[in-house]
Amino acid sequence: MNPPVKVLAFDVFGTVVDWHGTIAREVDALDLGVSGNDFATEWRSGYAPAMDRVRKGELGWTRIDDLHRMILDEILERHGIDLDEAARRHLNLVWHRLGPWPDTLAGLERLRSRFTICTLSNGNLGLLADMAKNAGIRWDLILSAEVFRHYKPDPETYLGVCDIFDIEPGEMMLVAAHRSDLRAAAACGCRTAFIERPLEFGPAVANDVRRDPAFDLHARDLGDLADQLGCA
Amino acid sequence: MNPPVKVLAFDVFGTVVDWHGTIAREVDALDLGVSGNDFATEWRSGYAPAMDRVRKGELGWTRIDDLHRMILDEILERHGIDLDEAARRHLNLVWHRLGPWPDTLAGLERLRSRFTICTLSNGNLGLLADMAKNAGIRWDLILSAEVFRHYKPDPETYLGVCDIFDIEPGEMMLVAAHRSDLRAAAACGCRTAFIERPLEFGPAVANDVRRDPAFDLHARDLGDLADQLGCA
Repeated sequence: MNPPVKVLAFDVFGTVVDWHGTIAREVDALDLGVSGNDFATEWRSGYAPAMDRVRKGELGWTRIDDLHRMILDEILERHGIDLDEAARRHLNLVWHRLGPWPDTLAGLERLRSRFTICTLSNGNLGLLADMAKNAGIRWDLILSAEVFRHYKPDPETYLGVCDIFDIEPGEMMLVAAHRSDLRAAAACGCRTAFIERPLEFGPAVANDVRRDPAFDLHARDLGDLADQLGCA
Repeated sequence: MNPPVKVLAFDVFGTVVDWHGTIAREVDALDLGVSGNDFATEWRSGYAPAMDRVRKGELGWTRIDDLHRMILDEILERHGIDLDEAARRHLNLVWHRLGPWPDTLAGLERLRSRFTICTLSNGNLGLLADMAKNAGIRWDLILSAEVFRHYKPDPETYLGVCDIFDIEPGEMMLVAAHRSDLRAAAACGCRTAFIERPLEFGPAVANDVRRDPAFDLHARDLGDLADQLGCA
């Protein structure tokens, strides 16, 4: 018999906000000679390897803003794009301006009426605070890998959320669009909800959103999750 | 010439919420044979010495919830009050239920429209999140000594806020009702705003709220601060 869930912890990039679409639109507007879709894909594909360098200890603790900037500089060099420092800084902060999916704001408000809702993101605290303020998202608490000095999927992150709220792992549910994240949370004893984000990687990629029986819940979007969790 | 302030960081206990009044009312309702005013004063007076034991390394990192509980158990023993474990746990969590001052909610909303507003409290993250949810306070980011593993007035806390938002110390203003907190922030190069809280220590204590020229701003309450900072 599972204890009742008290805290919903949300993955953010892809689950709550549309990184691909936001970046593609900003890059297309800059007219850099690379398609926004390709640029977004390249930027994001540098992300897991960069974090893995931190997770393996090759790099000391480095926040995502700085990892994003390292990857951005490589992309610009590879494509021979000339951008001055101010423009690079501004473009790098597009991750602070990512827009929510259409169901995000209303879905989170319904979930917040019944649960404590927090982020559990590899994004740094400043990034997540800017994003929430900009998008109008109201979290009960913003938590980040930066607090735990461990990136997901390290268990210190999921168990860190439970510790902060003084709850058992079974009283926390991770909400995410990514199976590896959910599997790692489940391995810590947390509950799991998979969210379908068919367009996370842009219109050109057929993202697999099939139901996986390994997870406790499977929802079309955050409104569907609120329905399944009995929120008004 | 100072750079413009971007982030307002708030002390919480006493500055934003009325710890004395909330605790006194809850304790009086329990009819323990000690006046709520005395109980609140005793509990709070154990707080600085307990934190100092952590700051000096006598105690390892210990969050405020646990320090509050140690002090509570001592008070109950001193007064020969018999409370079972569930009742002690509930009473200890009164710090998660502290109520805002009458000007807090409206003042913070005005300040939030122009600045990024965050907490910088020695209270732990779970406590601050519960308090904000319960009181209806909307922070852009909840920051705590728990994130920095240092208690105020250690400089790591004030400088930690600046680091998280990637700003210079002069772009952060600490808002607090306590001179020692403000002096420590000023020593780090941060701006300072003193808030008058004449009733912080209850009706029996004449709390000194005179203007101190050492601080950049002096405000009657958070609405007055919003006026002085030109918020709509």
